[in-house]
Amino acid sequence: MSYPVSARAGIVVTGTEVLTGRVQDRNGPWLADRLLELGVELAHITICGDRPSDIEAQLRFLAGEGVDLIVTSGGLGPTADDVTVATVAEFSGRELILDDALEATIADILRRLMGRSGVGEVDFDAVLAANRKQAMVPQGAEILSPVGTAPGVVVPGTPTIVVLPGPPRELQPMWDKAIRTDGVQQAIAGRTEYRQATIRMFGLPESGLAETLRDGEQSIADFDRLEITTCLRRGELEIVTRYEPDAAPVYDALLALLQTRHGREIFSTDGALVDDQVAELLAGRTIATAESCTAGLVAARLTDRPGSSAYVAGGVVSYSNEAKSALLGVDPRLIAEHGAVSEPVAEAMAMGALRRFEADTAISTTGIAGPGGGSAEKPVGTVCFSVQLADGRSTTTTLVLPGNRSDVRERSTTVAMHLLRRLLSTPAGVGHA
Amino acid sequence: MSYPVSARAGIVVTGTEVLTGRVQDRNGPWLADRLLELGVELAHITICGDRPSDIEAQLRFLAGEGVDLIVTSGGLGPTADDVTVATVAEFSGRELILDDALEATIADILRRLMGRSGVGEVDFDAVLAANRKQAMVPQGAEILSPVGTAPGVVVPGTPTIVVLPGPPRELQPMWDKAIRTDGVQQAIAGRTEYRQATIRMFGLPESGLAETLRDGEQSIADFDRLEITTCLRRGELEIVTRYEPDAAPVYDALLALLQTRHGREIFSTDGALVDDQVAELLAGRTIATAESCTAGLVAARLTDRPGSSAYVAGGVVSYSNEAKSALLGVDPRLIAEHGAVSEPVAEAMAMGALRRFEADTAISTTGIAGPGGGSAEKPVGTVCFSVQLADGRSTTTTLVLPGNRSDVRERSTTVAMHLLRRLLSTPAGVGHA
Repeated sequence: MSYPVSARAGIVVTGTEVLTGRVQDRNGPWLADRLLELGVELAHITICGDRPSDIEAQLRFLAGEGVDLIVTSGGLGPTADDVTVATVAEFSGRELILDDALEATIADILRRLMGRSGVGEVDFDAVLAANRKQAMVPQGAEILSPVGTAPGVVVPGTPTIVVLPGPPRELQPMWDKAIRTDGVQQAIAGRTEYRQATIRMFGLPESGLAETLRDGEQSIADFDRLEITTCLRRGELEIVTRYEPDAAPVYDALLALLQTRHGREIFSTDGALVDDQVAELLAGRTIATAESCTAGLVAARLTDRPGSSAYVAGGVVSYSNEAKSALLGVDPRLIAEHGAVSEPVAEAMAMGALRRFEADTAISTTGIAGPGGGSAEKPVGTVCFSVQLADGRSTTTTLVLPGNRSDVRERSTTVAMHLLRRLLSTPAGVGHA
Repeated sequence: MSYPVSARAGIVVTGTEVLTGRVQDRNGPWLADRLLELGVELAHITICGDRPSDIEAQLRFLAGEGVDLIVTSGGLGPTADDVTVATVAEFSGRELILDDALEATIADILRRLMGRSGVGEVDFDAVLAANRKQAMVPQGAEILSPVGTAPGVVVPGTPTIVVLPGPPRELQPMWDKAIRTDGVQQAIAGRTEYRQATIRMFGLPESGLAETLRDGEQSIADFDRLEITTCLRRGELEIVTRYEPDAAPVYDALLALLQTRHGREIFSTDGALVDDQVAELLAGRTIATAESCTAGLVAARLTDRPGSSAYVAGGVVSYSNEAKSALLGVDPRLIAEHGAVSEPVAEAMAMGALRRFEADTAISTTGIAGPGGGSAEKPVGTVCFSVQLADGRSTTTTLVLPGNRSDVRERSTTVAMHLLRRLLSTPAGVGHA
């Protein structure tokens, strides 16, 4: 693997709740990905609490290491322990000044938020005073408009410092604006342009992929011009490859090798998620769910995206045996004979959902998420799935999934998505399994 | 805020897969907890790749910041990119020497591992040579016997450096041995014992809390002996306070002030989560859910914990109007008259769930998660909730929640938990709202 000369960056994550592990940092990894995509090399991530001297020490460290860009996250709230902007201003030798236009913007946002919250009576002027602090910016900084109530700032210099809020849903939308600022563009001028491509697989063990990659190293010329990282997550394998544009033929050779060896397991070569694919396959259809061990997670995942009400009718969480019979019409004798976790019951649940919701597509899950309830015959992690279509196509299967209660529930949800994808993309008349 | 003199520590997490976010670091948070328990103050966590110069820079930074103890994780394997021990040795000015006893120990472990792995034919002498590297330790270091194949080392000095392996299942068992070494005991001799207390609130804006804390600063003597951090998450405020044992009366005064001002919003002063409280309140009861906009998230959250099948009967995700009527018995005229997102429909959904699942507790949600579907009268974020108990107690309310689709759905789920908590903890005969 080669490391081309490039722009270098460091990330400073602030927040005592992150330093002490009470909140898991999601910004460091997210920013690391964005920097990689840009072709900027990430050298260090540093995490500290809300103490100005510690934040300042980390800025000094990174500047001393010669990075071109520092990105900070957190510490932009209205409370006294939020000190990042003031600390960055002092570090850059810039005065903090009140930005009147920004103050007015924040006041507008707060008025709107408070007007509709109905959470309780608070003196609006006191709130404004607390939030005035958020309108103080380092002189000469570029302002990134707030997504929540906290604005970000870009302080140009050597290094340029991008100051972003802590909540990921505020930080992420601000990033695109941040990289378009002059300050950041100057800092990352020395970067190398990379292409990045993502291949997704389902159902292949990581060791199988490793073997193919070792073979590729032998059989594909210039294989070392590809920077390949693989990641296994909930049964899906994600293969991300970065390469300089002129190494595109090498990437094409890799893709061809993977398709020859693992064509059945590859479900995406354009970055699309299984959720995107299932949403597309469900257009014009109506789906209902019947969940036991996943208890709503499949319905929640199907409705995660805007517009899903066009094809999701609803679902039943039938946690108890009584609910399976009363709401889905599962024959109690079927449960008595085969047990609640069995393929006949999974089929009956899915068929009940088809009927009760007048849907044309239904999926069911019934399993043992643990930690209790397992047996020698049906250990913890045993989950039965059934997909039923109104045209008679169907698929029913049983898997034993690894991990703890939460792993089994999440993994089952992902398996359900893939079973839907496979059956819905099979031509009619072929799919009865 | 005062920072009592104490032993201070820093953590260095190494590994390119962690730096680039492909693998989530679990060692930093785990070590942070252990240090807090010991009364050692954690100042910095730094993360870098497998490059000696970056690791050395982080050690230099932490030593320069005057920490008494550095703990590193990762980079102890047999391959060439594992460089932590050599880098620490060079940083401490100690020679690397082969420890014969340790080499024999590692050889024994490898012989046992390879005997049972069946992974394939490998030349044992080649493996031993690769692993000889793991028996090279800095002169004068204390050795921590391997849990996997990699030994840890404690290099005494100013600061003392504890070098631990990356896999959490190897690092964690080594920690107890590490803190018992002379090197670590000397480094942490100056530690202070702290107490830590957590208060949780729901329904108070962060700025309201900030105002009370500012008042506390004026009215409570020695307020600066409390180290307070606040964190806002899905409408819940978490306030964590650390203090030395003799500052307990100061903490008691803070708690009394918060209870006077925000008694209605405080729901936990002992660290318990709303999930813990709801699980306890549901013991001996049977709950059913009727969800529209949350689409299964409330059912999934209630069944998140082991043993929940004792009190969760199930639920209906009634995404379409037809499903609300067919599965929950909501009168279609009610929907036509008030709209699907309305308090009468929320009530009818919860009452339908009570009936259909023969439950004694039911909760419903119906709202507009967005991005589409909003109107001037009912903007995106409008969510109606209803809790109905079989004994006639009930509560129904409408909120307008901020954020995007996913925020509205998650926040609604948290609100549902709090409405359940409030009604179930109200004495019978009082709760009809």
